[in-house]
Amino acid sequence: MKTTPRQNLITAAALVCVLTFATTIAQAADPLSSWNDGPAKKAVVEFVQATTEKSSPKFVPPSERIATFDNDGTLWAEQPMYFQLLFALDRVKALAPQHPEWKDKEPFASLLKGDVKGALAGGERAMLEIVMTTHAGMTTEEFEKIVKDWLATARHPKFKRPYTEIVYQPMVELLAYLRANGFKTFIVSGGGIEFMRPWTEKVYGIPPEQVVGSSIKTKFEMRDGKPVLVRLPEINFIDDKTGKPVGINEHIGRRPVVAFGNSDGDRQMLEWTQAGLGARLMMLVHHDDAVRELAYGAESKIGTFSDALMAEAKTNGWTVISMKNDWKRIFAWEQ
Amino acid sequence: MKTTPRQNLITAAALVCVLTFATTIAQAADPLSSWNDGPAKKAVVEFVQATTEKSSPKFVPPSERIATFDNDGTLWAEQPMYFQLLFALDRVKALAPQHPEWKDKEPFASLLKGDVKGALAGGERAMLEIVMTTHAGMTTEEFEKIVKDWLATARHPKFKRPYTEIVYQPMVELLAYLRANGFKTFIVSGGGIEFMRPWTEKVYGIPPEQVVGSSIKTKFEMRDGKPVLVRLPEINFIDDKTGKPVGINEHIGRRPVVAFGNSDGDRQMLEWTQAGLGARLMMLVHHDDAVRELAYGAESKIGTFSDALMAEAKTNGWTVISMKNDWKRIFAWEQ
Repeated sequence: MKTTPRQNLITAAALVCVLTFATTIAQAADPLSSWNDGPAKKAVVEFVQATTEKSSPKFVPPSERIATFDNDGTLWAEQPMYFQLLFALDRVKALAPQHPEWKDKEPFASLLKGDVKGALAGGERAMLEIVMTTHAGMTTEEFEKIVKDWLATARHPKFKRPYTEIVYQPMVELLAYLRANGFKTFIVSGGGIEFMRPWTEKVYGIPPEQVVGSSIKTKFEMRDGKPVLVRLPEINFIDDKTGKPVGINEHIGRRPVVAFGNSDGDRQMLEWTQAGLGARLMMLVHHDDAVRELAYGAESKIGTFSDALMAEAKTNGWTVISMKNDWKRIFAWEQ
Repeated sequence: MKTTPRQNLITAAALVCVLTFATTIAQAADPLSSWNDGPAKKAVVEFVQATTEKSSPKFVPPSERIATFDNDGTLWAEQPMYFQLLFALDRVKALAPQHPEWKDKEPFASLLKGDVKGALAGGERAMLEIVMTTHAGMTTEEFEKIVKDWLATARHPKFKRPYTEIVYQPMVELLAYLRANGFKTFIVSGGGIEFMRPWTEKVYGIPPEQVVGSSIKTKFEMRDGKPVLVRLPEINFIDDKTGKPVGINEHIGRRPVVAFGNSDGDRQMLEWTQAGLGARLMMLVHHDDAVRELAYGAESKIGTFSDALMAEAKTNGWTVISMKNDWKRIFAWEQ
């Protein structure tokens, strides 16, 4: 039987429809659609399959599926400087009218003149003074509101978007993919625990009780018959470098099987994770995309990815994620 | 139509069967079967219904359903003294051969002669020395093994059973009931966080990451190329009294809606819980059953339930659980 041109056309159209539909389905079905098919994505998918398939020799029981993630530079960006530091600088400006003495007092004087570099020239002491002045003295509830209010209005200097949108879409997909496979996802960050908790659930799907970070001390007090926790200008815990395994042990109480970081501050977390028995997955995000984000690493003060770390990654079999090659897109709002 | 005696007998037997079956079903269906029908059980059930029914004005979203429980005297027993102290005393005996100097050194000398009272006469300093000697100096993994080994062999002096069986069955049912209704259950105890974590998941269904407790500091170290955390003889955090809201804030990062305790050490946790907006449930276990367990409270050094706490419970509407009246049975192994 012969087909008419019209019939041919209909058949062709139908075929196109079916193919388009199939492609759409395939894309929708890929939980890691912002990852290019490459070694990093492959390592993730193979690890998850091997640890969740009951018959696999690498099977990990659901209760042991603990995955820890650094935040700055791993889940969201950290340039031109840590967002929490930008928050602190904005707070200094907001509080300045109540502190006329800052006009002549470093590091505040330089800061208020817009000279961030000059302010931070005072090193760790200057940084600590800025952090304590802007992070302590209020109740935990008041601080939470300050953070939320800032996030609602502040914009990233380069991307002109709220900081909570400067998050890496492939990592957001990865978090969801791990959770869909029974992993419990935690943040283990050098950032302030109470600076992160107000927004991590909404942005990453990670609830407050699964956030580990640096902290200052708090004190229980009764104010007008109501109990409050007052934030004190005293360091409680620094969740960085050797502090990360300590923080993991204190807050989680078991060793992760998955750990993602991006800098020298994450080294010990990855070592600690790897030292456990059974299957493990350690990865480092490498900022090598000067076009879509930034290329930095060994030479950067913020998010240092030293040559020694790169060498250790090779020796230990940690996967280094190339943002340039492994990520199809970096931010959700990219085309 | 007349029935024969035989028919009557069959009908009666069938009726008995049906009734027995119905009772069994009703019992099996009651998730709080070790609780007597009384004010405490009623308060729990009504609270859970009110906070989980979507149309209820008291509805609490699942993510906010945080429930915190003291451990000693609330979930398991705490007499003749805190089980962790009994563990420490056993450890002193076990370690004595390696410490010949203890023969002449208090508090160890008294302890090794079996004079616990004499050993503890040195007050807090003596206690601290016993705790640090027995809890520090090893890695976290070694300590976990020590705790597990002790629990496997040690027996409660009165009940002659493993300590992990001296847990309150009504509370175990309550934990499961809350979890079945979407609550996340946490321990918030003055006890050592690493003393509890090795067994809380098995005994209470509470995983390590949901245990908050007192702690000593730990230090990350490389030993033979392997990372370890070494337990240091230095207090990190005391999770008692005003420390409980601090610990809750640090570990959980949100305010509980449910809090259970049994002593003056839990006062601030209940106050902190109650001070939040919306429906709240605060309860105190009162040890008033001299027959099945022990009757103690205001006069007891361990698990003090002062008259002031009782007065505050009345003022604030906290339910006081009478172990004697509210609990059908106390331990799982009771008939």
